[in-house]
Amino acid sequence: MKKRRMSRAIGVGGVTIGGGAPVVVQSMTKTDTRDVAATVRQIKELEECGCELVRLAVPDAEAAAALRSIKHRARVPLIADIHFDYRLALAALEAGVDGLRLNPGNISDPKQIAAMVNSARSRSVPIRIGVNAGSLPKKPARGSVAQRMVAAALEQIDLLESLDFGLIKISLKAFDVPTTVEAYRLMARKTVYPLHLGITEAGLLREGAIRSAVGIGILLYEGIGDTIRVSLTAEPREEVLAGYEILKCLDLREHGPTLVSCPTCGRCEVDLFGLAREVEARLAMIEKPVKVAVMGCVVNGPGEARDADVGIACGKGKGAIFRRGEVVRTVKEADFLESLMREVEGV
Amino acid sequence: MKKRRMSRAIGVGGVTIGGGAPVVVQSMTKTDTRDVAATVRQIKELEECGCELVRLAVPDAEAAAALRSIKHRARVPLIADIHFDYRLALAALEAGVDGLRLNPGNISDPKQIAAMVNSARSRSVPIRIGVNAGSLPKKPARGSVAQRMVAAALEQIDLLESLDFGLIKISLKAFDVPTTVEAYRLMARKTVYPLHLGITEAGLLREGAIRSAVGIGILLYEGIGDTIRVSLTAEPREEVLAGYEILKCLDLREHGPTLVSCPTCGRCEVDLFGLAREVEARLAMIEKPVKVAVMGCVVNGPGEARDADVGIACGKGKGAIFRRGEVVRTVKEADFLESLMREVEGV
Repeated sequence: MKKRRMSRAIGVGGVTIGGGAPVVVQSMTKTDTRDVAATVRQIKELEECGCELVRLAVPDAEAAAALRSIKHRARVPLIADIHFDYRLALAALEAGVDGLRLNPGNISDPKQIAAMVNSARSRSVPIRIGVNAGSLPKKPARGSVAQRMVAAALEQIDLLESLDFGLIKISLKAFDVPTTVEAYRLMARKTVYPLHLGITEAGLLREGAIRSAVGIGILLYEGIGDTIRVSLTAEPREEVLAGYEILKCLDLREHGPTLVSCPTCGRCEVDLFGLAREVEARLAMIEKPVKVAVMGCVVNGPGEARDADVGIACGKGKGAIFRRGEVVRTVKEADFLESLMREVEGV
Repeated sequence: MKKRRMSRAIGVGGVTIGGGAPVVVQSMTKTDTRDVAATVRQIKELEECGCELVRLAVPDAEAAAALRSIKHRARVPLIADIHFDYRLALAALEAGVDGLRLNPGNISDPKQIAAMVNSARSRSVPIRIGVNAGSLPKKPARGSVAQRMVAAALEQIDLLESLDFGLIKISLKAFDVPTTVEAYRLMARKTVYPLHLGITEAGLLREGAIRSAVGIGILLYEGIGDTIRVSLTAEPREEVLAGYEILKCLDLREHGPTLVSCPTCGRCEVDLFGLAREVEARLAMIEKPVKVAVMGCVVNGPGEARDADVGIACGKGKGAIFRRGEVVRTVKEADFLESLMREVEGV
């Protein structure tokens, strides 16, 4: 795995992005932003599952006006997602948001950009230049999609820097994984600013999580990426959980327990799927980063999962509880779940 | 994306692995192999969802004996998974299996290996050297886990080559993604044989698919990998679907329709989650590789999803059906699903 690319650190609310800080997990509310109660409820859910930054759509003045009450009730820093109308950005900044996301594809008037940048600078609020493959500016029209995405971001960076603004973060999202990877790789060489990774419109929970894991995973493995958002057509909570799963796989973050479980095969003599699901449900109530293995085979189990803090290798009628590969106890099938969970508590 | 590593092609049944052939998707039955009816039923399910190779556990002589009837009723090539007892490999070969998987960690007697290799050679049946991080041979004890995995595989390759056997495939699986990636990268430089990719004991459907997507995705993006198996504590069908999703993300295989769908945000005014799930269910009945977009925003939708063959951008009460980014029709909310599906049929 490559050493992480060193980017310039910026602060969004109290959260540091880049400069070697842990990769930050973010999501977005899917409620009507004008509905303060529903939006705050969703922000609380996101805070509870470990979301570190929350973005909100600001489609109109009423939504911008709602941001002030929402901001008062949120612990997590909030980012306003602005398209088309720079006045919504000004209103969001006045309402106290911690970050702005602008799409260079749909606000291009330099005067409007200057107005937003001046207001953001006076408040030390960072701006994400959020380029999307599907909404690129018409120029430049040459080059691959990835090259055009990078060109659009670089042009916007130049503009912001010419306005003496450096609190910049960049994203370059596409649905297509190779395009997305190419764009971020190019950008990583051309800029010092932190990068926000994501695959856009990735789809429903299952396929979307896989697509995001492939794209974001490739980049993180190359040391690229300071914050991530997994975009899913699903509850925002799922985006956060998927985000942490990706980071955990690459040892970039710890986040609660990890379940190692074997796929089972013709050797398995117990209902391992059921047991694994029960263990998962119990582990969801635990915060410590313990690694727990549920294995369907007494012969291979403890050895194969020697890396786990605690585990069970299940045979017909009885199983072996082990710690770091060493069997500590044999238990009856009826006690599999409770014995394992008691051992987990003791870690 | 890197050019694919050129490996030596081998044939497993009628399926070519390596040598530039499309990446092959495989899975494993989870039934008791001795239960012929249940095992054949699961093999049929796997054939139906596009599984190209099926592995079966052979824990005892009765399971080995069952292979003959199973083989007669399967269209897909079958691979016998052998541990500890070389006589089970001999019996499986006699029963007509198309491939063997051996774990160098648990059959080490050179005479036993020679017996298996001689029988496989006489039948032109390939052998996978399936190294697992959790069941490494005791020697060599030096080096990182990845280095030790590669050393174990190389030693076994030497042994097989000294027996004039070259129908070899290699796997080097671990739960830990960086370890797995390091092992395959090392191996890719040291051998010409095709590589079978997988992350072992990856967990339940959701986390396991993400972990597999990160690990397998990184390697495929580097051009490494000739066949894959996603190991999930879930029905084998899920392993196949996840496998194809990973390959589709990197344009390595086509496999049925692809759903592009936006995550929604405060701009969305319809039940997009519901619509996307309904579209997904309908697409599951279609085989052609059409790309369909379900977007929650009329303003951005057609542009953002211009890459899709067909799509819908949904607003309150009405939506726009588009083809390759061009709006072709406006439809009422009640007609969203049916209008979109009619358009999909016309692609």
